[in-house]
Amino acid sequence: MEPKKNTSALNERDGVTQPETLSTQVAKSIQQFRRKTISSDELISKILKGDKVALSRAITLIESTNPTHLSKANEVINGCLPHANNSIRIGITGVPGVGKSTFIEAFGKHLTSLGKKVAVLAIDPSSSLSHGSILGDKTRMEELVKDENAYIRPSASGDSLGGVARKTREAIILCEACGFDTIIIETVGVGQSETAVHSMVDFFLLLKIAGAGDELQGIKRGIMEMADAIVINKADGDNIRKANLAKVEFNRALHLFPLKNSGWNPKVTTCSAITKEGIASIWNTINEYEILTKSNDYFNHRREEQNQYWMLETINEQLKNQFYNHPEIIKALEITKQKVLTHQISPFTGAIELLELYKKL
Amino acid sequence: MEPKKNTSALNERDGVTQPETLSTQVAKSIQQFRRKTISSDELISKILKGDKVALSRAITLIESTNPTHLSKANEVINGCLPHANNSIRIGITGVPGVGKSTFIEAFGKHLTSLGKKVAVLAIDPSSSLSHGSILGDKTRMEELVKDENAYIRPSASGDSLGGVARKTREAIILCEACGFDTIIIETVGVGQSETAVHSMVDFFLLLKIAGAGDELQGIKRGIMEMADAIVINKADGDNIRKANLAKVEFNRALHLFPLKNSGWNPKVTTCSAITKEGIASIWNTINEYEILTKSNDYFNHRREEQNQYWMLETINEQLKNQFYNHPEIIKALEITKQKVLTHQISPFTGAIELLELYKKL
Repeated sequence: MEPKKNTSALNERDGVTQPETLSTQVAKSIQQFRRKTISSDELISKILKGDKVALSRAITLIESTNPTHLSKANEVINGCLPHANNSIRIGITGVPGVGKSTFIEAFGKHLTSLGKKVAVLAIDPSSSLSHGSILGDKTRMEELVKDENAYIRPSASGDSLGGVARKTREAIILCEACGFDTIIIETVGVGQSETAVHSMVDFFLLLKIAGAGDELQGIKRGIMEMADAIVINKADGDNIRKANLAKVEFNRALHLFPLKNSGWNPKVTTCSAITKEGIASIWNTINEYEILTKSNDYFNHRREEQNQYWMLETINEQLKNQFYNHPEIIKALEITKQKVLTHQISPFTGAIELLELYKKL
Repeated sequence: MEPKKNTSALNERDGVTQPETLSTQVAKSIQQFRRKTISSDELISKILKGDKVALSRAITLIESTNPTHLSKANEVINGCLPHANNSIRIGITGVPGVGKSTFIEAFGKHLTSLGKKVAVLAIDPSSSLSHGSILGDKTRMEELVKDENAYIRPSASGDSLGGVARKTREAIILCEACGFDTIIIETVGVGQSETAVHSMVDFFLLLKIAGAGDELQGIKRGIMEMADAIVINKADGDNIRKANLAKVEFNRALHLFPLKNSGWNPKVTTCSAITKEGIASIWNTINEYEILTKSNDYFNHRREEQNQYWMLETINEQLKNQFYNHPEIIKALEITKQKVLTHQISPFTGAIELLELYKKL
């Protein structure tokens, strides 16, 4: 069937077929909803009732770069805050090609079949360039997107990882207030985005596949160290033997790392997002982790640490934004750069000059 | 011989035997020099004449946390700047145990034997805790420390890697103005300090040893990618075969990385700091690198990029320092942290409140 040409603003990207769930009727009601401004109190009360449209709208508010939206976004977040925090937050990373979407689809469906409410968010710092390479095309999770107990939201876009991550971090609060008890944060296995995801989740899952060049990525010490579980995906058909070998390897590698503060011993398992083999046991592992870390109080302690971390990160991010976006600084920076380039002043003096100018503004 | 108990301020640390070079006479002249204040013009003119005592004093000025020293430090740096830049800057990293000090001693002696003037600096972000675990004990480089064409300076200490790195970066300028044509920056192979060193050198050398657990560290992708040469140290005696095997492995691993912007093909070599085998050829490699990157203009282009980078890094560092060291912010931060901890406000709102307070101060 040829997709109907749709010129509405809901049709965010050319070339992407609208998901079937977006019927004309729903589209119309969303449009009407968007047209009318809504108070933060109304938004909060709808979110607390589990209204996914209100949730989406509030997340859009958080993501907005329009400064007038900032105070309203804050009101909504603070209104939701007392109702948040009751969830397990799971980070999932893996290099492209490892089958993250298929895995999350299978894993998410398993959770909703157990009566869980699952929200899937993403952090993709490259999304401002690629317009969302992960979760951008929601139809990659065909089943989950139609599930009424699931909510899928692509990565916010932004200039900096810090900004993108901060927005996702706030979206978690809203999803929890909306009744989602299992929050999955997906990220792509390149760059610093894993560290950002790790700093906002309770459980960090590293998705791998056996073979081909993967050894190199596998022994990326920093990410291995963060993992609470390593799951070797695509363990089906001819791949099963290789996956089991990889499992032995990773188990050995993990033993080289010191014991975690959580007291948790990271697990290595295999699974197939296609045959569903091993999917249920991953959820059991996460449950075991939750029981352990709640009994030894690591769970809450870590969430408190994460809150502190995010407050400081936001401050650091905003200090820079305010400086570099100041029109006088934008002008002066160009001149100073030139002076440094021509060795008239040292980079350090250039910095001091700009900082002194900034103080006077 | 029992070292004489020395109570002068020159005896910076207990338990460290004074290097033999520090004769009573020299000590006295340094003390006299230190007692009298010296203008920045005098300091600059002495540095330009190759005076190592003046150089040390200027570096101490840079490292000072006393705000009144800041403008004088800036004067000295800017006065030295036109005479800096004529050197090759070499970064050397490797995990503890790889034999960095012994290697730098052998390599540095080789360079001075060729008529080079060698300055060895260090970046050790842990130095404020350990009081300088690398280069802290200068006697580890017994020969080089006595060489009149060498200058060795331990890592600055500081709260943050950014601060420590910035000070080393400025020290490079002073060393160059003082006539040192080969600058070696040592760092320890843990954490983010390699990235800092990489951002201030022309050539980045990764020191390794063959065998035992090293595979894991070796395939730390980020650092491998930065390396312009991988040198397998301790290739002597029974180790030679293992070192040659490791060489083959690393060569293979390097081929997986994309071509560098410099056009340079990273080299893998073996060496022994004890037998001196392979030391001379490392210097030849660095010369080849310099010729290539000066002919394709990458050398200067990269130094300019590094200057820009360091200006922005300094700004970012200072923006944070000014904020977090403000007495009103120190007080308010504690209260806000408590409100975030008790879920009264979100981390984001806490950040915004503090930033708004800061604007009014």
